[in-house]
Amino acid sequence: MAKQNLVPAGKVKLLDFDPNYTGGFTKATARAEESKLEERLAELQERLYAGRQAALLIVLQGMDTAGKDGAIEHVFDVINPNGLRVANFKVPTSEELAHDFLWRIHKEAPEKGYIGIFNRSHYEDVLVVRVNKLVPESVWKARYEQINHFEHILAASGTRILKFYLHISKDEQKERLQARLEDPAKHWKFNVGDLKVREQWDEYMNAYEDALSNCNMPYAPWYIVPANKKWYRNLVITRTIVETLEQMNLQFPQSEDLSGVVIPD
Amino acid sequence: MAKQNLVPAGKVKLLDFDPNYTGGFTKATARAEESKLEERLAELQERLYAGRQAALLIVLQGMDTAGKDGAIEHVFDVINPNGLRVANFKVPTSEELAHDFLWRIHKEAPEKGYIGIFNRSHYEDVLVVRVNKLVPESVWKARYEQINHFEHILAASGTRILKFYLHISKDEQKERLQARLEDPAKHWKFNVGDLKVREQWDEYMNAYEDALSNCNMPYAPWYIVPANKKWYRNLVITRTIVETLEQMNLQFPQSEDLSGVVIPD
Repeated sequence: MAKQNLVPAGKVKLLDFDPNYTGGFTKATARAEESKLEERLAELQERLYAGRQAALLIVLQGMDTAGKDGAIEHVFDVINPNGLRVANFKVPTSEELAHDFLWRIHKEAPEKGYIGIFNRSHYEDVLVVRVNKLVPESVWKARYEQINHFEHILAASGTRILKFYLHISKDEQKERLQARLEDPAKHWKFNVGDLKVREQWDEYMNAYEDALSNCNMPYAPWYIVPANKKWYRNLVITRTIVETLEQMNLQFPQSEDLSGVVIPD
Repeated sequence: MAKQNLVPAGKVKLLDFDPNYTGGFTKATARAEESKLEERLAELQERLYAGRQAALLIVLQGMDTAGKDGAIEHVFDVINPNGLRVANFKVPTSEELAHDFLWRIHKEAPEKGYIGIFNRSHYEDVLVVRVNKLVPESVWKARYEQINHFEHILAASGTRILKFYLHISKDEQKERLQARLEDPAKHWKFNVGDLKVREQWDEYMNAYEDALSNCNMPYAPWYIVPANKKWYRNLVITRTIVETLEQMNLQFPQSEDLSGVVIPD
């Protein structure tokens, strides 16, 4: 199931992936399935947290309104906040810009036992930075390999990495922006500057295709998540995380020998 | 309601506070009340996050098994993880020890829009550090005033601070430790070293009384939470947070003028 979202080897064409795909689920069946998976997710997270042997890093990328915030709110509401760390990457500060582009990212890498979520990430440095020509082409082109090396370092030290591209159509984005515009309670989420990004849609799709193709490694795979239906998006992400944690064969740690321990009054 | 847990002015005597107190609630009525409050908490957090005008810092302290982890897991499960940051303070690293005791704490102070939770905190520097004589008396005695100054700096810059002491009895701790000992699935939470802390119970109570008395300021109040009943503990914390956020009069931000905005195809 998750496999069909896994980015295949070679050059990705986003037009080959249907953002409306729902895998035969309806809203009701998807939610029922997700509830079951969430129970298991909570159990697996407890093992991850108890064991402190490995970390899980989840990278979320997508166009405005694709549902990065919504996925975090809904998928991770069963997760014990003690073992969760969300990093929201914004426009870099001057201190961050004075370092290499991975410096601020590395600081947020999850420690063992934790699930770390990157809401946007180092991929912005080959997306918005490329589309808006913030650095020369030679610089952003070199970053794909640097990203692979960086992610390999994390993986080699026990961090499982899952990267989700939330795939919405341009029409769906229009509907979601329109809904924000029409609901005063959502105006705070509306940024007129986002419309400029929408006008660069095709350039962003090109940049995403290169990021997905060039940085799709066995130790840090990309998943294309059909995201026009929020309930299917949540299901795919939850299921992929659960399957990954299952594969990690997480065990509670060996405790000290507690036989004969008496608790004093 | 929350007021009766508020630490009164003057010297606190923990024996005056009943850890079994439940305010007339039963488990069922407490849970029903908490569910209602959680809905409101989620709404208020959205405003806090949207407005980016203020932060909320929640400090959790208590003896082993008092329920710091449990409170985080249960009280904050309605909170959007995007706007939440939990800091678990452990034994300081050598880098942390090479700085003043508030250096590592300050780094974790929540940014505006966020709820920050300190699972243990700078108060350990007048608790475990004092009881185990890790620094001379003159050093830890000076820290109460330093803590007040530090918290005042945070408050002056828009951070509301709530500090909860989770108050359990020594008997209740014994039962909880015993339960961990008897359940192999909970052995990972059991640390034989914790028994030494239990033997220092009275010294810890003295240290807590001084911390609660000396650092109980209007801008950073302490609450004593009766915590023998987990469901009442959760209710008190949730209610205090909701009441505090209500007082903060959080508003959605003024958005740009969006009249006439048209979303391009």
